[in-house]
Amino acid sequence: MSSTAEGVEVDFGDDGLVPAVAQDADTGEVLMLAYADEAALARTRETGRAHYYSRSRDELWEKGATSGHTQEVEEVRVDCDADALLYLVDQAGGACHTGFRSCFHRTVDGEEVGERVFDPDDVYE
Amino acid sequence: MSSTAEGVEVDFGDDGLVPAVAQDADTGEVLMLAYADEAALARTRETGRAHYYSRSRDELWEKGATSGHTQEVEEVRVDCDADALLYLVDQAGGACHTGFRSCFHRTVDGEEVGERVFDPDDVYE
Repeated sequence: MSSTAEGVEVDFGDDGLVPAVAQDADTGEVLMLAYADEAALARTRETGRAHYYSRSRDELWEKGATSGHTQEVEEVRVDCDADALLYLVDQAGGACHTGFRSCFHRTVDGEEVGERVFDPDDVYE
Repeated sequence: MSSTAEGVEVDFGDDGLVPAVAQDADTGEVLMLAYADEAALARTRETGRAHYYSRSRDELWEKGATSGHTQEVEEVRVDCDADALLYLVDQAGGACHTGFRSCFHRTVDGEEVGERVFDPDDVYE
């Protein structure tokens, strides 16, 4: 919870990761939830583009590096316990690899509520 | 990713928990991030009030049970990988125990950007 010259000291916990929520800076739509380690947060702040840590590929990951669906980061917020991040972003294309604008495109009941904005076959080979 | 008669099968992972983001259903403000286990999600769906799993207290936790700052849940969404939840809520009072409307009331640079809506000394003894 302490602040330094570099800002709030983020608590990356035992596994070195914090959840990072990306929210559309204009519309407020919650686009996705991924994880960030210290390097991903540092790269995000340095470059102004959203970086995460891919748990499946075990590596630093710049969102959109493959698909072109980058996220320009307007602001990074941190929660009260400093163990979760909120990226306010301008999303190019769609955040979800399935072609939806948001990864949260379904209710838990299975109802489709999201907007499909691209065809994944056109983006990923 | 599979769907059942009860809807999408959520992947609670090795530790039995998924991150759950609460978003104001009206304004779109991201209010908090906590964790839910299977029981917390079931109670949320049964009661229409947000439940989480408290990792620090190691127990099921109804948001606002102590403070009165409950969250009426309008909809529960699940992400593409079914390992994160989004609760769309009507938040009574403030979500944050520090008195702010949202737990994400600071930038990572330490700038205060949130709205304080109650005095925690009046709510928590």
